[in-house]
Amino acid sequence: MTIDDTPRETFRGGPRELLRLVASGAAVSRADLARLSGLSPSTVSQRVEALISQGLLEEAGAGKSRGGRRPRQLAVPTGGAVVGAIDLGAHHARIGTLDLSGRVVEARTRPVRIDDGPEAVLGALLAEVAGLAPAGALRGVGIGIPGPVQHATGRIVSPSRMPGWNGFDVAAFCTDRVDAPIIVDNDANLMALGAHRTAHSEMDHAVYIKAGTGIGSGVISDGRLHRGAQGSAGDISHCRVVADPAPLCSCGNAGCLEAVASGAALVTALREQGVPVADLTGVIRLIDDGDRHATALARQAGRAIGEILAVVVNFFNPQVVAIGGRLAECEPVLASMRATLYERCLPLATQTLLIERITTGQDVGITGAAHLVIDQVVAVD
Amino acid sequence: MTIDDTPRETFRGGPRELLRLVASGAAVSRADLARLSGLSPSTVSQRVEALISQGLLEEAGAGKSRGGRRPRQLAVPTGGAVVGAIDLGAHHARIGTLDLSGRVVEARTRPVRIDDGPEAVLGALLAEVAGLAPAGALRGVGIGIPGPVQHATGRIVSPSRMPGWNGFDVAAFCTDRVDAPIIVDNDANLMALGAHRTAHSEMDHAVYIKAGTGIGSGVISDGRLHRGAQGSAGDISHCRVVADPAPLCSCGNAGCLEAVASGAALVTALREQGVPVADLTGVIRLIDDGDRHATALARQAGRAIGEILAVVVNFFNPQVVAIGGRLAECEPVLASMRATLYERCLPLATQTLLIERITTGQDVGITGAAHLVIDQVVAVD
Repeated sequence: MTIDDTPRETFRGGPRELLRLVASGAAVSRADLARLSGLSPSTVSQRVEALISQGLLEEAGAGKSRGGRRPRQLAVPTGGAVVGAIDLGAHHARIGTLDLSGRVVEARTRPVRIDDGPEAVLGALLAEVAGLAPAGALRGVGIGIPGPVQHATGRIVSPSRMPGWNGFDVAAFCTDRVDAPIIVDNDANLMALGAHRTAHSEMDHAVYIKAGTGIGSGVISDGRLHRGAQGSAGDISHCRVVADPAPLCSCGNAGCLEAVASGAALVTALREQGVPVADLTGVIRLIDDGDRHATALARQAGRAIGEILAVVVNFFNPQVVAIGGRLAECEPVLASMRATLYERCLPLATQTLLIERITTGQDVGITGAAHLVIDQVVAVD
Repeated sequence: MTIDDTPRETFRGGPRELLRLVASGAAVSRADLARLSGLSPSTVSQRVEALISQGLLEEAGAGKSRGGRRPRQLAVPTGGAVVGAIDLGAHHARIGTLDLSGRVVEARTRPVRIDDGPEAVLGALLAEVAGLAPAGALRGVGIGIPGPVQHATGRIVSPSRMPGWNGFDVAAFCTDRVDAPIIVDNDANLMALGAHRTAHSEMDHAVYIKAGTGIGSGVISDGRLHRGAQGSAGDISHCRVVADPAPLCSCGNAGCLEAVASGAALVTALREQGVPVADLTGVIRLIDDGDRHATALARQAGRAIGEILAVVVNFFNPQVVAIGGRLAECEPVLASMRATLYERCLPLATQTLLIERITTGQDVGITGAAHLVIDQVVAVD
């Protein structure tokens, strides 16, 4: 089962607001909810019944009577429901369980060999996540994939560096193995949602760049994850940038952002220059050590990211642009990105723009994955 | 008075939905509204009173009694309220009045000399629009400016080709002259809203390019005009494009989209090539006649627009990209734009993408201006 969208409750009286009113102690009865939400008693009753039938609310004995029938008290069931989360990367996965408020209950990092294929990789991770949840407590699993995911179907579409994964139906595969809703999205969207909910929830419009082995972005528009028509919004990896010579991309075009500014591209470019480097960790070590080849490539990567981001910032005018992923740790990448952004953006668009690193830490992806599921689980109507 | 934002009523029972229920005949009383909207009677009453106090609803005699007090009937007042609209261009303005459903009541085109300055230009247009409305019927005026407008203040910020207009407070100037709310926005936003409401209202995400004397875009995200943090969203005019040699832009940078692909840029480039051309009309005539210099420039303009749009489409993943403004009439511009878009976009992002001309006609701008005002006038809460 795939489920759709991340609703934002800007209106009063939505199911999540009712749940929050009870969770916060502001409301202990249906009458309280009607008074606080402005909804009619019958609408409140309908929504409360739906929440109870989902196990998100429970009746907690009778309240104080005011002459008539004693009102039944409402409460949020304790010690139970969790959601599972898998944030799959090129070499590692972060997995865990989180409670319905989005707090991490348990989290682990697992090495991953993407080349083993989707069944082996996802099968093992999913079994481990399901095992972390107490019996009957798992309300859903959110899964992030380091490649394009068609949102409507949960299928992976033409991923780079994921041989054997193209067209794989993640949602169907996982639904057969876990008795809970599955939501699949790309890793940059999860990072964006996780960072927004933890660091920028008061900002309406935000862009998050994930610069690791690959490169992508996630977009928050009007407080919600913006997926666009096909679910591919934020996928800037094959936007063309100025580079001379323009390196060939895995997609067959030359000069794609991914071929210039991704961690994988830096590894390739350094090797072509005769610098022996094992992986992205090695590249980052060279940059930190001030190696001039590695640093020059890092600066070029930052300029390329800045060039595309300048179009994005002019077009979208966000309050914040934040960069995460392992390349975000490299000062030359960040500095060149900032310089290019300021040079090429409208003054009006950068006047109050925050440009920063994502500081939410290694659980940002599973936090985003959990929020996707929570929004859905609690969005009864 | 400037007023904020274009709310989309995705929730039930908003003031505009109540108004629509009465206008459509589905509801004739407060009780009908409560039943159909799911709101409590007291909430319905509050909202109805607000609508009545704004003159958007009226009491229309007593309805049929069912034993108790006779319910008062509700109706939408007829033959009255209109909104005014001004769509200012570099050489002409389209002005008019529209009814509260967004239909044009009266519209005219007026020649404009931008160099005469904001007081003279806007003063005359505003007086004419106010004169079109029956006494007491004007509920607001929407004004589109061919340059950047800071949404929060209604001020013009660093416009190209509008000497004497920088920093001008359009909203304050107009508010002193007309006793009705004034909404100021840039012309591309108004075109986007007008085209979306008339041609694509079922599409959530859309991008509209206005390619006339200047070049800009308007963005619809989740059915609403996306203005961004500062109101500058959609302003792609100073995004850098590949051009050799890169022409100097009025902003002081080289290679801005506006310096390569705007109508003003084509006029300048043709003159530099020794082709005597009076204005954009002359350029379009040359392109239509197959002049090779003019056609080559038109193709270059189309490629430049396509290059920036490719980043926008990858990033935003809209259902539709539509182009309007006078350059949209030129086949070579459109053809080169399409070719570049298809070459440089993700397959997933263009799979179902509509790329088309805006066909709403010359009233698209004033229609957008009117909808801005209508949304606000009817958005009591």
